[in-house]
Amino acid sequence: MEQLEYQEGRTELETLGEFALIDRLTEGFVRHNDTTALGVGDDCAVIGTGKTRTLVTTDTLVEGVGFDMTYTPLKHLGYKAAAISLADITAMNALPQQLLVSLAASNRFSVEAMDELYAGIRLCCDRYDVDLVGGDITTSRAGLMINTTALGQADADTLSYRSGAKLHDLICVSGDLGSAYCGLLVLEREKVTFQADPNFQPDLDGFDYVLERYLKPEPRTDIVRMLAEKGVVPTSMIDVSDGLASELLHICHRSGCGCEIYEERLPIDYQTTRVCSEMSKNMLPVSCALNGGEDYELLFTIDQKDYDKLKDERSITIIGHITEPGSPAIMVTPQNTAITLRAQGFKN
Amino acid sequence: MEQLEYQEGRTELETLGEFALIDRLTEGFVRHNDTTALGVGDDCAVIGTGKTRTLVTTDTLVEGVGFDMTYTPLKHLGYKAAAISLADITAMNALPQQLLVSLAASNRFSVEAMDELYAGIRLCCDRYDVDLVGGDITTSRAGLMINTTALGQADADTLSYRSGAKLHDLICVSGDLGSAYCGLLVLEREKVTFQADPNFQPDLDGFDYVLERYLKPEPRTDIVRMLAEKGVVPTSMIDVSDGLASELLHICHRSGCGCEIYEERLPIDYQTTRVCSEMSKNMLPVSCALNGGEDYELLFTIDQKDYDKLKDERSITIIGHITEPGSPAIMVTPQNTAITLRAQGFKN
Repeated sequence: MEQLEYQEGRTELETLGEFALIDRLTEGFVRHNDTTALGVGDDCAVIGTGKTRTLVTTDTLVEGVGFDMTYTPLKHLGYKAAAISLADITAMNALPQQLLVSLAASNRFSVEAMDELYAGIRLCCDRYDVDLVGGDITTSRAGLMINTTALGQADADTLSYRSGAKLHDLICVSGDLGSAYCGLLVLEREKVTFQADPNFQPDLDGFDYVLERYLKPEPRTDIVRMLAEKGVVPTSMIDVSDGLASELLHICHRSGCGCEIYEERLPIDYQTTRVCSEMSKNMLPVSCALNGGEDYELLFTIDQKDYDKLKDERSITIIGHITEPGSPAIMVTPQNTAITLRAQGFKN
Repeated sequence: MEQLEYQEGRTELETLGEFALIDRLTEGFVRHNDTTALGVGDDCAVIGTGKTRTLVTTDTLVEGVGFDMTYTPLKHLGYKAAAISLADITAMNALPQQLLVSLAASNRFSVEAMDELYAGIRLCCDRYDVDLVGGDITTSRAGLMINTTALGQADADTLSYRSGAKLHDLICVSGDLGSAYCGLLVLEREKVTFQADPNFQPDLDGFDYVLERYLKPEPRTDIVRMLAEKGVVPTSMIDVSDGLASELLHICHRSGCGCEIYEERLPIDYQTTRVCSEMSKNMLPVSCALNGGEDYELLFTIDQKDYDKLKDERSITIIGHITEPGSPAIMVTPQNTAITLRAQGFKN
């Protein structure tokens, strides 16, 4: 009988990061089918051999890890679970079209609670013209787990991968960065206060934008449509789920290049700045942008020849450019100091 | 703040069956894309508008619900998690080609444990020429959860749906039925004995077949290939995950027909019969076949004109035929009694 706890030569899961663990576990798998155009390693897998390709991606949200039921309304949770998978399709410069949802829920949850969750999923599907095409529902011994799989179909020529960035390409990002993380900080602060005094009424006035950014992220299908209208195919693309620094490093790693971004160019909302100043004098908005994550904005690179097509586009910001192979990923401060970007936190 | 436990008008999840719950939750979703050829309601969703269609399906295994770590080796678990999703592709009369795996694991599990799990996934992928193309890994607060999404590409003309069975079609099933459930019964019996006496060494001799059927199910890609070679496209098809009775009722419901099967025709292995006789004098092998589940065999119907092509095929058994719309799903006993089939258990 299995005795997992007492294995010899045991390595704890947390000693490897998620990406190193995935690399280790997927090593040794071989490709058997020519319909597998792209496997593990980008925002989506790409399937098919013809002009039209199918994109597929999967994400899991686990209660107590990916979300906290004390401040996450179930309708928002359903919306978010759908949205984060749809965002992975947009991260290939494509539009999502189908969604599958797998649920595992304990008996703590009622049918009415599941109704709320699915109302949120449906709201997101209807907003982004996505069809719910499958899934399953099972019992869990504790907690709620939601797995979402999204699919999209796109012309092979219009797809953007993490691997295509090249020297002198411009680095662009949609929307603003760091606001979702600030929304989480506000919710965590209110939770602590509520736990100390259950009669406490949370005061969330003035934080509506950052809260919505955290609780109800939006996949940027509008950016994918705008790029198509302007005839721009990004040379590389990724969505910002783990923070700008981590995503830039993915692009640099896969594209074999370095990058240089400018701190003063980073798009940061005034509510993000306000939350930071209220929280602690040591918390910098730029840290939230670099390392906060969950913004689900699109980070992409374009050839300089496409600059004129996008220079007046207010939904995106050009934050830097791609540098030579072998150079580091750096951020230049207003004081002209170069900070090397790290996946978690950053150092001088 | 959310207080799930004290909602008014609360309906417990277990008061609805899985299928009724899915119907309730997916009601109200509308189709937005013509690339969605088939949505919720069959073994797979079908995507695409051309001759070649993409099939996609998802399944979740939750520790303590879908599997018991006390007697499930992780390598077998990985194999099974992959196999059950691949089986859903075969249930459309197609071959699986891609797999995505999402894991949520608590810190009880080590990196080496995940290595074992992925060794099983890889074994199954290599055996069935399937590519691992994505997934994610996250932490859980307790237990292990595995979600698998499988894809396949197939010619639209060769797909078999649950809905195509018609009057006088012959009902066929691959392999044997009830053996996986008997494997589970043996494992549960040994677990109880082990819990009473931890020095007890389980004696599993002579049960190798039923144990393997439960711990390491095989998707019947060989049947899909055999049917293609013989030029037979089943009029309807489903895989046996919940027991023969439940699956037959799905086909009858979706196809708008009844059916008649013959008890003496049901393929039952001798080990299944042996386990039943050892367990209890009240346990009938036919009950295991009808209601046991997890066999992952293919249940399908063929037009009578195809009978000659399959009559000498030893990997399948013809167990009955389709009857008129409005007629019940029945099993005829050797004593010529008609038993009406129910999804869980059956009655005279």
